[in-house]
Amino acid sequence: MIQVKAFAAYDAETPLRPFEFERKEVGANQVQIEILYSGVCHSDIHTAKGDWGPAIYPLVPGHEIVGKIIKTGENVTKFEVGELAGVGCFVDSCRKCQSCIEGEEQFCDEGMTGTYNSYERGTTTPTYGGYSTTITVDQDYVLHVSDKLDLKGVAPLLCAGITTYSPLRYLKVGKGHKVAVLGLGGLGHMAVKFAASFGAEVTMLSTSPSKEADAKALGAHHFALTTDPATMDSLANSFDFILNTVSAKHDYNTYLNLLKKNGTMIIVGAPPAGEPLQAFTLIFKRRSIMGSLIGGIKETQEMLDYCAEHNITADVEVIDMDYINEAYDRMNKSDVKYRFVIDMASMK
Amino acid sequence: MIQVKAFAAYDAETPLRPFEFERKEVGANQVQIEILYSGVCHSDIHTAKGDWGPAIYPLVPGHEIVGKIIKTGENVTKFEVGELAGVGCFVDSCRKCQSCIEGEEQFCDEGMTGTYNSYERGTTTPTYGGYSTTITVDQDYVLHVSDKLDLKGVAPLLCAGITTYSPLRYLKVGKGHKVAVLGLGGLGHMAVKFAASFGAEVTMLSTSPSKEADAKALGAHHFALTTDPATMDSLANSFDFILNTVSAKHDYNTYLNLLKKNGTMIIVGAPPAGEPLQAFTLIFKRRSIMGSLIGGIKETQEMLDYCAEHNITADVEVIDMDYINEAYDRMNKSDVKYRFVIDMASMK
Repeated sequence: MIQVKAFAAYDAETPLRPFEFERKEVGANQVQIEILYSGVCHSDIHTAKGDWGPAIYPLVPGHEIVGKIIKTGENVTKFEVGELAGVGCFVDSCRKCQSCIEGEEQFCDEGMTGTYNSYERGTTTPTYGGYSTTITVDQDYVLHVSDKLDLKGVAPLLCAGITTYSPLRYLKVGKGHKVAVLGLGGLGHMAVKFAASFGAEVTMLSTSPSKEADAKALGAHHFALTTDPATMDSLANSFDFILNTVSAKHDYNTYLNLLKKNGTMIIVGAPPAGEPLQAFTLIFKRRSIMGSLIGGIKETQEMLDYCAEHNITADVEVIDMDYINEAYDRMNKSDVKYRFVIDMASMK
Repeated sequence: MIQVKAFAAYDAETPLRPFEFERKEVGANQVQIEILYSGVCHSDIHTAKGDWGPAIYPLVPGHEIVGKIIKTGENVTKFEVGELAGVGCFVDSCRKCQSCIEGEEQFCDEGMTGTYNSYERGTTTPTYGGYSTTITVDQDYVLHVSDKLDLKGVAPLLCAGITTYSPLRYLKVGKGHKVAVLGLGGLGHMAVKFAASFGAEVTMLSTSPSKEADAKALGAHHFALTTDPATMDSLANSFDFILNTVSAKHDYNTYLNLLKKNGTMIIVGAPPAGEPLQAFTLIFKRRSIMGSLIGGIKETQEMLDYCAEHNITADVEVIDMDYINEAYDRMNKSDVKYRFVIDMASMK
């Protein structure tokens, strides 16, 4: 057995604290990764707090993982010891359904196996995520990571990156399109980078004037203050796409009105309750709302390769493992530019 | 001036009653149509009752109009006296914006000129709809109607027909697609006919077991009772498209769950208040909701030609003009198969 040091939530209320557990020895098709950096996603907080349903405690969050291969099973052909590797939001899926066959494992008919808060397929062994020293994953669910990029900024690509990359690619967003990004956090800042990189004209929509300089530094061409009625009026019917990353309560219709005819609002954040949708707002301009969920292994690899080629990483604040509870508090106040990443060396 | 007999709503409360008014003489680019049949749309009721905002009273409803050309202006080249013709939901638009240039006048930037409850462009002369003996319209906003079809069943094509035809065409619905139709009324029965005609496998979703035989007679391949939880469970993730024609309050999320990955729910009915939309329902299968609004003149003509070629008409109950208030009452109880059409000969 492999001894692992980690940080875990033991229940919905108390702060995360140290946790030690054992992982099974590396299987024939598995690789063992020494985790170097683990990004901190809002999903980690929601899951740890039980916001999205009962959690499996102790819960070790973390699904934005980069590290180094330290062991490979006998059948492993895709990775060698010493190579850099990444693990995202899932570590397994049924491999048989249409979505799995098409490489869209995130939509697996049986449900993907989450990197944490799931059970290893067909067992009662919980999966434990990236807030730990090492992880063991089937080679088919591990990503290659380039050594050209700063690893700290690569970790968040595994969730925040692919979550915004995937719908922009699915909808073929690029040159000639006007794209608005709603919400400047972990997802929003990656959305700006990707949309701009794909050639679109990007506008950051925000309630806070202080974000204008930041948004433009990230690559946004324009900034619009959504609290100003005159600005909102002037932007009616002007965007081809809105990438909506907001998971707090907000009015969809206000933003839908900013879409052109045939425009689409992409939803990657999930407000806690259902948001009222006015049918006429869609009907009068043939507008759409589309949801999108991370990406499959194939597309995640494509995204990582694209980032290596175009020098794209997340903007991060590196923290030690024992800062995690303070980091959660700050994330709940949107006080991070734009992603916390845990330096796992701090746990050894 | 042309003397016109009509039926009008004089206010939001009292029944419709006779109304006489004058129309201007036929302009150089206009045709005068003797109205033979006028379909009765739910929009007529909503507008007459002021449900969608202040109405211009006296209000003459009716935007599913077929008749015969009885006079043409000196510049008219598209129509000759004696030909059959149709008029739908609008009689003018700006003609300059991108949508008008593309033949999608329903999305005119300045707003289309409604067949009723609007003002003739640049004037304070109200437009009066199809519950009348004659109408005068610019030739560019008039449709050619084949003499191969039963005219009574053609009238509803001008709104119920194009409203369902347009989104199915826009989304390229056809062979290999599974399509569900929600709501078996004026719109729903046309949706079944078109979707089946385009080669899709069609399921009628209904709360009423009594509608099964009717739905199948219209061309639906399957019928599903939405009040049965086991049926709904078995239909989860099974449709490529749902054409949602319901304008009463209902839960979008229940039906969105029936869509496959990448599936789209088309909304052509507008519930009175905003319906709560659960983001996760869209996110977990990359589902979409899209609104759609009638169609432009070009597409409406294409639809009428398609109907003539494929022998498609609406199923109608023909009524006399003075039955209109009873017809409204029955429509509010969904007691019509599937569209009332006024025989305008009853008014002379």
